[in-house]
Amino acid sequence: MTWIDIPANAAFGPETLPLGIFRTGDEEPRVGAAIGDQVIDLAPVASAQMLDGAQVFTQPTLNAFLAQGRPAWHATREWLLDLVRNENNRVAVEPHLIPQSQVTMLLPFEVADYVDFYASEHHASNVGRLFRPDAEPLLPNWKHLPVGYHGRAGTVIVSGTDIVRPSGQRKAPADDNPAYGPSQRLDIEVELGYVVGKPSQLGSRVGVEDFRDHVYGVVLLNDWSARDIQAWEYVPLGPFLGKSFATSISPWVVPLEALESAEVALHEQDPPVLPYLASDRLTNLDITFEVYWNGELVSSPPYREMYWSAAQMLAHLSVNGASVRTGDLYASGTVSGADKNQRGSFLELSWGGRKPVTVKGEERTFLQDGDEVTITATATASDGTQIPLGAVTGRILPAV
Amino acid sequence: MTWIDIPANAAFGPETLPLGIFRTGDEEPRVGAAIGDQVIDLAPVASAQMLDGAQVFTQPTLNAFLAQGRPAWHATREWLLDLVRNENNRVAVEPHLIPQSQVTMLLPFEVADYVDFYASEHHASNVGRLFRPDAEPLLPNWKHLPVGYHGRAGTVIVSGTDIVRPSGQRKAPADDNPAYGPSQRLDIEVELGYVVGKPSQLGSRVGVEDFRDHVYGVVLLNDWSARDIQAWEYVPLGPFLGKSFATSISPWVVPLEALESAEVALHEQDPPVLPYLASDRLTNLDITFEVYWNGELVSSPPYREMYWSAAQMLAHLSVNGASVRTGDLYASGTVSGADKNQRGSFLELSWGGRKPVTVKGEERTFLQDGDEVTITATATASDGTQIPLGAVTGRILPAV
Repeated sequence: MTWIDIPANAAFGPETLPLGIFRTGDEEPRVGAAIGDQVIDLAPVASAQMLDGAQVFTQPTLNAFLAQGRPAWHATREWLLDLVRNENNRVAVEPHLIPQSQVTMLLPFEVADYVDFYASEHHASNVGRLFRPDAEPLLPNWKHLPVGYHGRAGTVIVSGTDIVRPSGQRKAPADDNPAYGPSQRLDIEVELGYVVGKPSQLGSRVGVEDFRDHVYGVVLLNDWSARDIQAWEYVPLGPFLGKSFATSISPWVVPLEALESAEVALHEQDPPVLPYLASDRLTNLDITFEVYWNGELVSSPPYREMYWSAAQMLAHLSVNGASVRTGDLYASGTVSGADKNQRGSFLELSWGGRKPVTVKGEERTFLQDGDEVTITATATASDGTQIPLGAVTGRILPAV
Repeated sequence: MTWIDIPANAAFGPETLPLGIFRTGDEEPRVGAAIGDQVIDLAPVASAQMLDGAQVFTQPTLNAFLAQGRPAWHATREWLLDLVRNENNRVAVEPHLIPQSQVTMLLPFEVADYVDFYASEHHASNVGRLFRPDAEPLLPNWKHLPVGYHGRAGTVIVSGTDIVRPSGQRKAPADDNPAYGPSQRLDIEVELGYVVGKPSQLGSRVGVEDFRDHVYGVVLLNDWSARDIQAWEYVPLGPFLGKSFATSISPWVVPLEALESAEVALHEQDPPVLPYLASDRLTNLDITFEVYWNGELVSSPPYREMYWSAAQMLAHLSVNGASVRTGDLYASGTVSGADKNQRGSFLELSWGGRKPVTVKGEERTFLQDGDEVTITATATASDGTQIPLGAVTGRILPAV
């Protein structure tokens, strides 16, 4: 498949070829592609080959690349596949291979708007049961539209950035008044993030069929959440400070084209959706996440069970004429499966803090200072091939 | 006060000196200051005087200027005041005065994150009475924290941009299922927007006393709202498509320094707020809006009655360690007073559509295609001087 050596347990295989922004020493940040445990420094390779648009690889973010649109994304992928498959390219590429262990990865793109959906029926049902035990777990709108809201774009950070425990107001039902202090229910949310490249015009819609023209690829995303702050603040306008302190994303953006073999049909939606959300070609991705809490595997959320398709999320987001921009990031919401060991938040895993889980021999509910959470994911192709998607990690620092 | 002629009914007086981005003909967009009914083209004046940092006035957004911080904002204001007060500057400035009628105004700054608060007690109480008639109008958290949420930064548009009527899902309580179509309850929200210049670090807080170091000035803001879309979608994660199609702002950013004479003490807050929101120097602004519906004055919302101070909004927004960026915009939420003719939305003016208002002899509730809404505002200085703050306007186009 490739003349480049791919060690067992390398971060990526030979054909994922995700893009990211890396830096070595004092050099300027620029675009790299990952293969195995190495980075291809794309700018000098593209420049030497006088590739059309080579200058996008010299940029400190992927935005210029993303703005080029689907034909350019496809041409770049074909070029990259040829670089790594065709041994004739060894002389041109080998001098520009850098071990991933020797580079610093930066935020891969400048985030325009960040939207977070709520597209897992298992997650929404679990949260409903926890917060409204005497009512129907799903609210009446949930199966008619992909519920979502805007998050804070300015606090989307790259994997590896430490998370300072947030402080804020919280009030237990038994308390008369709210108190201020560090969050005592700090949590994760395992999500898949979609990266928009091609913009749309204000006043127009992006149809469900146009998804692949606008979305370049995916990142793994951890939407850190302070449940106590969120519970007190969120009526009636939704989550705010319980979420806005940090959202971590993986440094490598995996192109949708690399995941075509892992596409599966979306399960039937009942009740049927309105026409602007309907298509007989809606798909999902057969991706399994793994959540490591201080190195121990505590959950394996399955993305293929998500209720809403990413194409429906984008069609809904823009149905009112809202424009999308290069660098827009929208996330799936917490990915949870039917089983306990498939839940994508500690709120669910510990059932609201009432049923601790065992981590390295200790009973745990929410995050303690010093804890580290790493989320990895692997897509499974229809022929069984495993496609690793990288990782997103973060460590909790004490409140300041 | 100034050697520049200020006609009666000019858009601005001699000392407001707001900044904006203008274009004439085919020339590049650049920074201007408004005085009377003219624009001072700042780049050539600053360049000829070899002013420090003159290049920020050649930019197509105010962001570079805003990022300089408070000492530079103050120095710029002092320079501008001298330009317009000192007749010796006539020779240098007069060739660079352009009538406002001859320029096109653009979005004044690139919006980073957009947050919308809910800081008027009259507005929140009215909405509570309309949506939850059998319950307490204010939710339990309302007087403990300034409730807010993130809006869509990419659809913040400059005054004068047409508003395409949004389509989406809505469901009346009596209907079994939602339907898709153009919003039938299209509304306005009269707000004041605060423009952040100086950024803060992730993991740190902006204290209530640091407000003036970070916020440069204000814009008038109309947060167009589709009430039927909002009512169906907003549980449990808050408003999304009911708001995200468009938010209009005035083209001229008025510096806080120009409004110091219009500051008034914030009224007492009861119950007392937590220490991170407390200060004995909290202020409000004595600003009165005027809302013109197809040219007819229908409401005059008073900003001085807002419950939460802008300094408290910023302190709350960042108390969890969320960073702020140059170009962040946060808005007050709908400004409503105690009287019917002081309400800042048509939802309130028409009491949920049940009590139409008369506009140009017609009974009206929500916006019809072709309607135009213009919001103006005037600050009143402690000596009674009236300080006009400009206008934000928009016209409704039919759904597409």
